Amino acid sequence: MKTIPLLLMGCGGVGRQLLQHIVSCRSLHAKLGVYLRVVGVCDSKSLIVVSDVFSMELDDMFLLEVCRAKLSGSSLQTLCSSGELQVLTNSDSTRKVIDIAAHLGKSMGLALVDCSASSETIGILKRVVDLGCCIVLANKKPLTSTMEDYDKLVSHARHIRHESTVGAGLPVIAAINRILASGDCVHRIVGSLSGTLGYVMSELEDGKPLSQVVKAAKSLGFTEPDPRDDLSGMDVARKALILARLLGWRINLDSIKIESLFPEEMGTNVMSVEEFLDCGVLLLDKNIQERVNKASLNGNVLRYVCVIEGSRCEVGIQELPKDSPLGRLRGSDNVLEIYSRCYNNQPLVIQGAGAGNDTTAAGVLADIVDIQDLFPEK
Amino acid sequence: MKTIPLLLMGCGGVGRQLLQHIVSCRSLHAKLGVYLRVVGVCDSKSLIVVSDVFSMELDDMFLLEVCRAKLSGSSLQTLCSSGELQVLTNSDSTRKVIDIAAHLGKSMGLALVDCSASSETIGILKRVVDLGCCIVLANKKPLTSTMEDYDKLVSHARHIRHESTVGAGLPVIAAINRILASGDCVHRIVGSLSGTLGYVMSELEDGKPLSQVVKAAKSLGFTEPDPRDDLSGMDVARKALILARLLGWRINLDSIKIESLFPEEMGTNVMSVEEFLDCGVLLLDKNIQERVNKASLNGNVLRYVCVIEGSRCEVGIQELPKDSPLGRLRGSDNVLEIYSRCYNNQPLVIQGAGAGNDTTAAGVLADIVDIQDLFPEK
Repeated sequence: MKTIPLLLMGCGGVGRQLLQHIVSCRSLHAKLGVYLRVVGVCDSKSLIVVSDVFSMELDDMFLLEVCRAKLSGSSLQTLCSSGELQVLTNSDSTRKVIDIAAHLGKSMGLALVDCSASSETIGILKRVVDLGCCIVLANKKPLTSTMEDYDKLVSHARHIRHESTVGAGLPVIAAINRILASGDCVHRIVGSLSGTLGYVMSELEDGKPLSQVVKAAKSLGFTEPDPRDDLSGMDVARKALILARLLGWRINLDSIKIESLFPEEMGTNVMSVEEFLDCGVLLLDKNIQERVNKASLNGNVLRYVCVIEGSRCEVGIQELPKDSPLGRLRGSDNVLEIYSRCYNNQPLVIQGAGAGNDTTAAGVLADIVDIQDLFPEK
Repeated sequence: MKTIPLLLMGCGGVGRQLLQHIVSCRSLHAKLGVYLRVVGVCDSKSLIVVSDVFSMELDDMFLLEVCRAKLSGSSLQTLCSSGELQVLTNSDSTRKVIDIAAHLGKSMGLALVDCSASSETIGILKRVVDLGCCIVLANKKPLTSTMEDYDKLVSHARHIRHESTVGAGLPVIAAINRILASGDCVHRIVGSLSGTLGYVMSELEDGKPLSQVVKAAKSLGFTEPDPRDDLSGMDVARKALILARLLGWRINLDSIKIESLFPEEMGTNVMSVEEFLDCGVLLLDKNIQERVNKASLNGNVLRYVCVIEGSRCEVGIQELPKDSPLGRLRGSDNVLEIYSRCYNNQPLVIQGAGAGNDTTAAGVLADIVDIQDLFPEK
């Protein structure tokens, strides 16, 4: 049986779902010959960790208690600690994670799993990579930081997995890595990588005004608390950057041409979410509807896509044939077309749900199971 | 640097292409920290192997010579042997492969790669699995033999890869394995898994008679030498069986309902290829054209699909909406739709070239690179 000691950073929607998946997969993973031993969990404020990381674990009852607490909006600190658990905060918790990594990295190994959405984990991740540990990321921020940070994080290629940073659980990164490992050369990637913008674009196509679609998407829970985080295109740009860097491009976020669906005058530092939803977005309806209508006259539809090709990496609205894989896309599905030597005239296409805590956490869990060969038998 | 000692069985189209890929990927693989050390190659008649499998290898010049010899239709035996190489035939070669596996399996490891299309490799594969070696298969026969053979071959789940047995290089097996490892439950798979039958079906849709389409497909090199090997549906049934067994189904090839495009009276033991192409297939034109026309009246098209769902595993012609992923399929692309808890209303779809030596060999090579963690540093 392979035992993977695991420390989870980020207990929001994805992290919480991951813990539930881990608990419910115990018997399945036993059949696969792998055991996930959770030694610690942390949220933005604190870290709960077992007192002896070599032999102890947070048991399944406790992991489910963590899920309940986080679901009800409580912080980890509120969970009563026993003598066998340590609760640490702020800089103490950072020091402790690195300490654990130093101890486990060279012996039984450690998988540090980042399900946060924070750039504050980058420092820790870089340290634990140096300490011989594995990192598994759903968090896009570390991989979209500077090239220097990126190079460090991927310096042990077999010690990092990050399928859920692009297209949630869709096997997008796995597919590209397989293509690259076989010496095939990817020369073009086109995709729709935002469930939110996918939904918005297909609703616009049905003639609904943008303001109404955005409000509906927000109330359905399809958007970030501030929908401008989706509408800015920044999330898609991060995904495009991760794919471009996977192909070997040495570029940064500011090299990517990003089309925002709202102007700077409606930015987060100018107006509140309420002002944007009540007034701002209404002013955008006419222009976007005209673009939708114009596309429709050509038999086309608008899609928010990422394009990586030649020396061009950009994200924005494109007018595409209604009868193309991207044009046919409805709702919040993602689609990615990969063109290479082997997939030249017709691309390799991967399509399906590209958002949601369940799917994203499933992708993280598959990543964790996939690194089992790096851990000793126990 | 990880070094993977490798022995290749089968130097036909796929095996030959694999050797070329291995040679041309040397510098790429060096960057990935992996080295493929080819210790032996065999075809149906003979095995060429280095005299010391612990330290020697067939060098790149020799591997390319193997490719040239096989491309020109020569057998391996014709390659002049030096004192450093051994040439063995028949039962000697089987004994030698097992001997090598016994020596390398417990020390530096061995990847036994089966790019043949023969069921004669099953015995060797089972033995080397027991000896701690890895097996990488493009050959469907071993995985579609008895359940007993199958259980043995997959008994060390991490020691087997077989992406190229279904959909060539498309990441179909990888995707399903990821879904299963995350505890997600696959409840339905539908796909078009034969490039040949995909081509035939989309040509029929354009109004061409079956006899003409089959002859054109044969002359384009899209079919087996005897096109009935494709038209029987047996190749698709083997792929369906591999997928069903991956999902945990304990069934055999004879549990699968297989629709053949020709009747038993036109079987290989009744008429020759020439008789079939000159007379037999002409008798099939009318009936299939009527089915195509009938489907067309309903706005549908015919596709040769595999369906795995509930307790049903079958392959055959289905009438499908023109405007569905399968209905839109043209030419020799494969498509697979996977329905699971995470991909429930809308499936996970993987589509692209599912045939061809280049793509198939690329899938095998990606599999080999993927098992590197099981080999020691060197």
